[in-house]
Amino acid sequence: MEADDTSARLLPLASWQSTHKNSTEAKFSLRNVVLYVSLLVNLPALVIVFHPIQGFLWTPPRSEQPAAPQWAEAVQAAERAASKWCSGNGNVFVDTVGIDADGSPSCECNDCFAGPDCSLPLPDCVADAISGDPLLFEAYWRKNSDLGAVVIPAWYRMGYQTRDVTSMPYTEALVASIRELHAMVGNAVTEGRYIAFGTGSTQLINAVIHSLALQDPGRVTPVVSKAPYYNAYYTQTEYFKSPFYSFSGEPDRKVGQQGPAQIEVIASPNNPTTQIQEVPQNVSGHVVYDHAYYWPHLTPITKAVDYDIMLFTLSKLTGHAGSRIGWVILKDFDLYTKVLRYADVSTIGLGHEAQLRASQLIRTIIDGYSEGNSGREGIFHFAHDVLQSRWAKLQAIFQNVSRFSLQELKPGYCSFFKRVSDPSPGYAWIRCNREEDADCSAVLLSAGIIGRAGPIFGTTPRYVRLSLLKRASHFDNLADHLLKLVAQS
Amino acid sequence: MEADDTSARLLPLASWQSTHKNSTEAKFSLRNVVLYVSLLVNLPALVIVFHPIQGFLWTPPRSEQPAAPQWAEAVQAAERAASKWCSGNGNVFVDTVGIDADGSPSCECNDCFAGPDCSLPLPDCVADAISGDPLLFEAYWRKNSDLGAVVIPAWYRMGYQTRDVTSMPYTEALVASIRELHAMVGNAVTEGRYIAFGTGSTQLINAVIHSLALQDPGRVTPVVSKAPYYNAYYTQTEYFKSPFYSFSGEPDRKVGQQGPAQIEVIASPNNPTTQIQEVPQNVSGHVVYDHAYYWPHLTPITKAVDYDIMLFTLSKLTGHAGSRIGWVILKDFDLYTKVLRYADVSTIGLGHEAQLRASQLIRTIIDGYSEGNSGREGIFHFAHDVLQSRWAKLQAIFQNVSRFSLQELKPGYCSFFKRVSDPSPGYAWIRCNREEDADCSAVLLSAGIIGRAGPIFGTTPRYVRLSLLKRASHFDNLADHLLKLVAQS
Repeated sequence: MEADDTSARLLPLASWQSTHKNSTEAKFSLRNVVLYVSLLVNLPALVIVFHPIQGFLWTPPRSEQPAAPQWAEAVQAAERAASKWCSGNGNVFVDTVGIDADGSPSCECNDCFAGPDCSLPLPDCVADAISGDPLLFEAYWRKNSDLGAVVIPAWYRMGYQTRDVTSMPYTEALVASIRELHAMVGNAVTEGRYIAFGTGSTQLINAVIHSLALQDPGRVTPVVSKAPYYNAYYTQTEYFKSPFYSFSGEPDRKVGQQGPAQIEVIASPNNPTTQIQEVPQNVSGHVVYDHAYYWPHLTPITKAVDYDIMLFTLSKLTGHAGSRIGWVILKDFDLYTKVLRYADVSTIGLGHEAQLRASQLIRTIIDGYSEGNSGREGIFHFAHDVLQSRWAKLQAIFQNVSRFSLQELKPGYCSFFKRVSDPSPGYAWIRCNREEDADCSAVLLSAGIIGRAGPIFGTTPRYVRLSLLKRASHFDNLADHLLKLVAQS
Repeated sequence: MEADDTSARLLPLASWQSTHKNSTEAKFSLRNVVLYVSLLVNLPALVIVFHPIQGFLWTPPRSEQPAAPQWAEAVQAAERAASKWCSGNGNVFVDTVGIDADGSPSCECNDCFAGPDCSLPLPDCVADAISGDPLLFEAYWRKNSDLGAVVIPAWYRMGYQTRDVTSMPYTEALVASIRELHAMVGNAVTEGRYIAFGTGSTQLINAVIHSLALQDPGRVTPVVSKAPYYNAYYTQTEYFKSPFYSFSGEPDRKVGQQGPAQIEVIASPNNPTTQIQEVPQNVSGHVVYDHAYYWPHLTPITKAVDYDIMLFTLSKLTGHAGSRIGWVILKDFDLYTKVLRYADVSTIGLGHEAQLRASQLIRTIIDGYSEGNSGREGIFHFAHDVLQSRWAKLQAIFQNVSRFSLQELKPGYCSFFKRVSDPSPGYAWIRCNREEDADCSAVLLSAGIIGRAGPIFGTTPRYVRLSLLKRASHFDNLADHLLKLVAQS
């Protein structure tokens, strides 16, 4: 019940909307309006108070100012943690719990490494390529250790809202940095659009579906997605068993027909296939575009997308999956208020620390591509190089191997890189071609490779998804296992 | 779709459970088991690798170690922000967006203050006492600026999980600090109990209700709460319109009867009345105890509660409502896995930054009450003193006033403070006694006071809740308005 909910939630929605309507960002609450009216009414009094004659104006003595903040201890603790060498195969963080015999914190070793300093590769370690954990970015932030760090004093934005006199659950800095980033990359239109945030885009998938269904009362709205689709669309929709919507499989894409509305969820680039996808214009119903992977390191940017509903996430942009920050760009104000309401009722917004970190990280990315930057490698170039070389290696492994096929990907002109960009997908979508290999994930598992099986994405077991987004050590291990498997074939 | 879900979610729940059962904290995934088996099988190889003859062991050259982290810029930015003086009536944070004419960041003024340095009190400013924003704690953290600050490098726990080789979405540091805190305060039993976290206890209210209903399939489980109850119990349950449960008003507390199970949600201390509440033993059905306010600054601690399901939150403990950290202490392993599953499906856990900050803040509280502490005031003493003096002031205002009544509260022996503790509630629960004052919140609003009306808590408009948890300036403003109102009466 902490859970003492926000003023936004407490105002009748109608009056709250009326104060927000015609504003691209909801900055003013009813309380604020009252405050400003009060201010206006008392203008004469204010003039007196502002008058330079000091006697009128009570100013707190400077001695009331708090002492300068003393963060030396926090800085030292973080430095002590960061200075522990874990052979590049592990980390010590300031909240690492274990202690070594010498009193120093214990390394938290990455998968497949052990030993006090994680220098010991575990032989025959299983290649875990199941989750899309974007750990490849860790090396970038490690290398550029002056970028993106944050210092958060204990009194940082403690309240439910990000600041007084606003009903906004999000910082202005976060909203501004996201608009600026999309403008710089040229991958999405945000001008004149509403932006709502979620505890990861995971929360927003359901927030948007729930809100769209609320706009279409009195029936169970079908939620559809063309297989293979990202599994969360199905899992979430089924899990909540809402009376407002239910998962109904393949979309009905009859162009120009005015049928009962459906909600189609579509990822572009697709997860798992990494192909760009689009729904024909004029299909009746709503389309939710999941653009988690529409960034230049993962696919050529060909246009600034401008759909009605577009999901993005920090996870596949900077690699901060654990921060749980997603956003949705919306054209419709009513849908925006409904999504805010969903986030408010279910979690009262999202953590302020993650918002701070996200805005600082995005600011760093923008600065890295601004004129006058230090000349160091920008994050999109870094990640594209990593993923492109991984893809090239995979192609070499599977070349002339009839037992398996990889999805086909072609180079394309990227308007951000301003050059033709070679494929750099986040996933390998593998087909087992032999008749007896009908369960492709079992075939891979027998070779020590954990992938995600086709049926999870609504398709046949003949397919399996392998993540290419993890650390170099993960990918190298995966490649070794694949090489051995292919050699047996 | 960032939203690439965690390995926990991907494993069949049965196999995941089997690896977790009989462990109070779920630390080992199937992957981990595979890893350790692999380790065991290869023990001979490990012996060779560990052998002191260096030739066997590849160690990365020290030159591969990354340069020492360079956080000077982040520290300077935070200090620059914190050094701006906003008269004690506002803040500048590192992500403050506005810039003053002199190039320094603009103060973000608190409610009822304006001017470039927030030194200007707005006359006749409305007293907003509607939300339970726990801003009274801001002064504590400001005063003790060396406590609870965190430095987060960009590479801090980037993945979905808090670390490799674990399926835990929560840091060990957070879990350990919470167990230690409850043991120190003596307000709840955690030994041998499971602890799950949520994006605020808000998320957990529904996670627990949903999970309990899933344990009782084939019917719509009634959710009940004795009025006046905290509004989120009703709002959330109604909002999601689950086919598994629905809000049914007052609890049926027939002791010893074996009827169809209900889920009763009860806050103790209660919100809004601040009274300790308990459900009689042997009532059929589940009881969810919301202990958000069961801390020594808000109520005398009389026992370590040990119910089946107990909710807590950082918000009313340290004041960090904006961090969105809540936890539930559970006796039942099956319920625990279901709550984890709910959090996984709806948001894939909660932000790692907030977890770090929470564990650091709680560690600070524990240290403050440990032997050898610096002798400075602990947070419970600070907050109790503030709230007790506010309550005393309210009582003085309403003394001999027949038009309004406050709830009755008595001093009690607090086992944490080891003395009789005077009332220090977070809310005033006010009754308008005059027949014509049937709409009590309207009466207060006409006097410039915004409270939360009785019907929101499931009771009559004759009651209104006023928050006492906000900043000193908020409370002083509220007291001024109340004094004027009472004087008119």
